[in-house]
Amino acid sequence: MKYPVVAFQGEYGAFSEQAANGFFSRPVKKIPLKSFEEVFECVHRKKADFGVIPIENSLYGSVHQNYDLLEKYHLHIIGEIKLRVVHALLVNKGVTLQQVKYIYSHPQALGQCKDFLSRLNHVEVIAAYDTAGAAKAIKEDRRDDAAAIASLEAARAYGLKVLRRGIESNHENYTRFLLISKKKRVATKHAKTSIIFSMENVPGALFRALSVFALRDIDLYKIESRPIIGKPWEYLFYLDFQGSIKDEPCRNAIAHLREITTYLKILGSYQTGKTMTQ
Amino acid sequence: MKYPVVAFQGEYGAFSEQAANGFFSRPVKKIPLKSFEEVFECVHRKKADFGVIPIENSLYGSVHQNYDLLEKYHLHIIGEIKLRVVHALLVNKGVTLQQVKYIYSHPQALGQCKDFLSRLNHVEVIAAYDTAGAAKAIKEDRRDDAAAIASLEAARAYGLKVLRRGIESNHENYTRFLLISKKKRVATKHAKTSIIFSMENVPGALFRALSVFALRDIDLYKIESRPIIGKPWEYLFYLDFQGSIKDEPCRNAIAHLREITTYLKILGSYQTGKTMTQ
Repeated sequence: MKYPVVAFQGEYGAFSEQAANGFFSRPVKKIPLKSFEEVFECVHRKKADFGVIPIENSLYGSVHQNYDLLEKYHLHIIGEIKLRVVHALLVNKGVTLQQVKYIYSHPQALGQCKDFLSRLNHVEVIAAYDTAGAAKAIKEDRRDDAAAIASLEAARAYGLKVLRRGIESNHENYTRFLLISKKKRVATKHAKTSIIFSMENVPGALFRALSVFALRDIDLYKIESRPIIGKPWEYLFYLDFQGSIKDEPCRNAIAHLREITTYLKILGSYQTGKTMTQ
Repeated sequence: MKYPVVAFQGEYGAFSEQAANGFFSRPVKKIPLKSFEEVFECVHRKKADFGVIPIENSLYGSVHQNYDLLEKYHLHIIGEIKLRVVHALLVNKGVTLQQVKYIYSHPQALGQCKDFLSRLNHVEVIAAYDTAGAAKAIKEDRRDDAAAIASLEAARAYGLKVLRRGIESNHENYTRFLLISKKKRVATKHAKTSIIFSMENVPGALFRALSVFALRDIDLYKIESRPIIGKPWEYLFYLDFQGSIKDEPCRNAIAHLREITTYLKILGSYQTGKTMTQ
């Protein structure tokens, strides 16, 4: 039996791996990669069937590099999931909080747990390349004086003990992940659609582009703009809207949009993602 | 005579310092600071009269941290300048290209000069914290085997020799800087206005917000969205549009926008920035 192959960025136990688990109920083969571009490249070259990429965090905003890569590569968005980010304090088995003198994690995770960290005495906080990587290092170096802040998935991946969980200050911390694939798949139920477009730089252009949706009562979820390389102060727009390109109103809206845009690319129609908690 | 005090992020010779020089024809006292937040804090506490911040680069997009800081602090945007980013290879006096074995710079600058770097043999490329900091280190350590990639301003600041200039691959590389101040100042000639707003999360909301400008033939320059902390998947919108809040059409548009938004903040009306080349 052949397992589907899923590429993600980070070490085993990264939040992206957790999202990958959320997309598939059956077993899959997972490939951890160093960069987002490697994830796209891997799917493009058919070394993986699917890629999982973070696209937006509810506290930090869009992952702009992945917006740019969605434009650069010709892959399809076929799924979405929202993951509640829960940080845990992980140690080797037998280690107690009193023994912990050093805490390692990615600077963003350390920042998200600063209230928790400020209540600890005599602990040195040290920045690491990523959260799961910090967990891995604690395990491999058999540290009994150190802890990592990482996901519960990282605890499972490296057999670490969860000393505290939910230590993040703001619990409204979610990351939205997309599932990308070289094979097209169009959802019709509970669907949303993502597109990229650009227009001539004339007054009222964006207003007219949005009108094709408003006039058909199609709800917009998100708009994002990115620079066009070589054309300073002109932009590509990324739009997420309600419905599937197989629905008639959306099909009409897209046809209408083609009349007034200079470039239009459909990234995919996929089921609106459920929110996963750990 | 008291000089105006201008805060910027980076070392002396940073591109932000160059932008600061562009804003003032008379002598000013400049304060280099470590972070963007320190620049805002310094102006807020009246330790500086002005702050200079990068807001957007034509290749990399918006500097989102500064968008968030414009919302957090209650300062006014009173000026804009666009700076053509020109990278130069800097060495200590007497050093030739043949002697250069190491090249230091910020990873983004190194990436922007990768065509130039790929034509050099036997040179090791090393990442540094910032471009001007790399130039400063070359000077202080009296290196005769190393060069830095930085601005021409950095060459002047540290008395370094310009071995090559314009070594960036893409010459359509501009950074847009804003001048911020605690004192309000409203421009009327060649003006543009920046605002922040949020709306109820209902279908067609953004379309209606943009209609207040389109219906009055007011041109939009840029739209940017940022997450609202604590309200996942809801957004603050940042809009730059043509005209001054002292102009009647803009005043009417703003009054109309107030009717349909839940939050509205005017960041400033300022003269549209000229493009500065070095």
